[in-house]
Amino acid sequence: MRRSLCCRRSAGEKSLSESHISAAVDGAIQADVVIVGAGPSGLFQIFELGLLGIRAHIVDSLPHPGGQCSELYPEKPIYDIPAVPVCTAQELVDRLLQQAKPFNAQFHMGEEVIDLQVLEDQSFLLRTSRDTRFHARSVIIAGGLGSFQPRRLGLAGAETFEGTNIHYKVKNAAEFTHKNLIIFGGGDSALDWTLELAGKAHSLTLVHRRAEFRAAPASVAKMRELVSHGSMRYVEAISQSLIITEDVLQGVRVKTPQGRIEELFADHLLVFYGLHPKLGPIADWGLDIDKRAIKVDTEKFQTNIPGVFAVGDINTYPGKKKLILSGFHEAALAAFAVAARLNPSKKIPLQYTTTSPIMQKRLGVAADGAAS
Amino acid sequence: MRRSLCCRRSAGEKSLSESHISAAVDGAIQADVVIVGAGPSGLFQIFELGLLGIRAHIVDSLPHPGGQCSELYPEKPIYDIPAVPVCTAQELVDRLLQQAKPFNAQFHMGEEVIDLQVLEDQSFLLRTSRDTRFHARSVIIAGGLGSFQPRRLGLAGAETFEGTNIHYKVKNAAEFTHKNLIIFGGGDSALDWTLELAGKAHSLTLVHRRAEFRAAPASVAKMRELVSHGSMRYVEAISQSLIITEDVLQGVRVKTPQGRIEELFADHLLVFYGLHPKLGPIADWGLDIDKRAIKVDTEKFQTNIPGVFAVGDINTYPGKKKLILSGFHEAALAAFAVAARLNPSKKIPLQYTTTSPIMQKRLGVAADGAAS
Repeated sequence: MRRSLCCRRSAGEKSLSESHISAAVDGAIQADVVIVGAGPSGLFQIFELGLLGIRAHIVDSLPHPGGQCSELYPEKPIYDIPAVPVCTAQELVDRLLQQAKPFNAQFHMGEEVIDLQVLEDQSFLLRTSRDTRFHARSVIIAGGLGSFQPRRLGLAGAETFEGTNIHYKVKNAAEFTHKNLIIFGGGDSALDWTLELAGKAHSLTLVHRRAEFRAAPASVAKMRELVSHGSMRYVEAISQSLIITEDVLQGVRVKTPQGRIEELFADHLLVFYGLHPKLGPIADWGLDIDKRAIKVDTEKFQTNIPGVFAVGDINTYPGKKKLILSGFHEAALAAFAVAARLNPSKKIPLQYTTTSPIMQKRLGVAADGAAS
Repeated sequence: MRRSLCCRRSAGEKSLSESHISAAVDGAIQADVVIVGAGPSGLFQIFELGLLGIRAHIVDSLPHPGGQCSELYPEKPIYDIPAVPVCTAQELVDRLLQQAKPFNAQFHMGEEVIDLQVLEDQSFLLRTSRDTRFHARSVIIAGGLGSFQPRRLGLAGAETFEGTNIHYKVKNAAEFTHKNLIIFGGGDSALDWTLELAGKAHSLTLVHRRAEFRAAPASVAKMRELVSHGSMRYVEAISQSLIITEDVLQGVRVKTPQGRIEELFADHLLVFYGLHPKLGPIADWGLDIDKRAIKVDTEKFQTNIPGVFAVGDINTYPGKKKLILSGFHEAALAAFAVAARLNPSKKIPLQYTTTSPIMQKRLGVAADGAAS
């Protein structure tokens, strides 16, 4: 279980005292702002900050930018992005990446922000699952529906074996050599690992709940070939219960489409049921949360912690609709608030990309000598 | 001077009583919603209402949709529309028109909404400058910086002669035949009318403040040809004061770049200094106004008059930035509020264009049989 190191702002607890700040931030990346989440809102947040002259760091638990657009429905059409009558979700992400490009945000992909500490001087210390640390003056949470977590096997007692005999990702393929394996799932991850491990394991059984596979047809064909050669087994079935003897996992009972219960024995179960979003560690950062969303104001989209903002599907306020275009608006207003926080004494004028030489210089589109 | 017929909602005044409603709305166009203003926010408002199954009427004082984008800077690039790294203002308008097209809004262009009355049953009676009347259940003001008004000559006493001897548009060209005319301006309107009237007027002088013209070079060349043939006169000068004798307009004093004052005599002055936006009649509708903008909430973008909403540059609320993308967000939330008002008993679910068969049917992109 993950232990939260965050500094809850409840009475009786204290944020790190100033004498400890320098030690705490030692070796951390110094950042004006860290964006948590690289979905559409997070990507447009880079752009809006960039227009105001602020360079962002952006962190996401997924290996590539795009959030749910890229992860859940990349090929699906979207019709309600203003002035874009139709585009696929992945095209939307690509366009936002292109638009954000002039601002050179630093991407930290495949890392989940697991801790947020509020320091005495109202700056923040963030730590990721890869132990990257940021000392940030502002934080913008653009976490969408949350971070993507593997869907669990969902059988009684399974949690006890997570990381020992039940696995949701492969950290070290060598540990499965000469072992008896059951792989669950019908997507690319399940099939890729089936093909990878079939020759190395002592025995391997693929269990999938239905005849259709989401995985690439070529992978499915190769798997069937391995089955026909006797190199592995394929069972169409739904998992029912774990077989456990004296606290040792022996295998799993499954139910076939014909209703027959079958017992499959194995040392390891590898489960690839895909990812789904969960609020995750953000829930422990002392933020006001209402129904899995972070409460913000509609002026700055700031949370109850000054300097921490939330934009996109992860926030809530009266009238909130989880629309991508609302995330864009929220990102624009949050950018102004971050700029004001970074330069409290400076008035941030509203300038337009159409006419502002300084913005056009930042965008890299200024005519020669246009920017002073 | 325009006399406002609107029903101010202050104490002591009453809205039209029910017995008068049927008479008042007789012959008016029945509308679920009227959008006032066809700039980017108004055009996207059509789309957002359409997704919810609501067809809009849209009215604008300009002859074509696009508002200030088309009127003030059609060829200028815009860089901050989300997922559109760059487009000209006119391209933005064209894309929004294309996106709104499936929803068959009825456009009423070249008409200014001059009156808004609140009826007893909380519906609205609107009247335009062309005497089109709407009986509407909701009104969305997307008026941008206001309606476009001609820039005035700005000389003392000029107002007295507006519509008689000083003109900002030509209603009937015949009235200028055989008259002595002075035309002011260097844009297309000034040059077009110069070329049109030069052969018909008794005398014609074009006055422009500088050597460069905004008008098409071909028009300027033709004008110079007429000058060289003695058919008209051109004076580079700035207007200084009107020449008035016993309440009769005689002409105008102008100052040349050399600082010489010259007296030009004429029956009519035609002024084509372009258009600029003014809040206009909207200021008289009983709306809460703060610094030329209409106050709204951030949940529905509703004004102080229930059923009247305001989106885009014309509204204000804490944190408001006059950004096109904010207008888009506001239009989306206002659409949900209008839908709720039209069907108070019905819950309006949030659906996505990516997955909703009913929205895809409304968009005209539904797969066969996808919509029920």
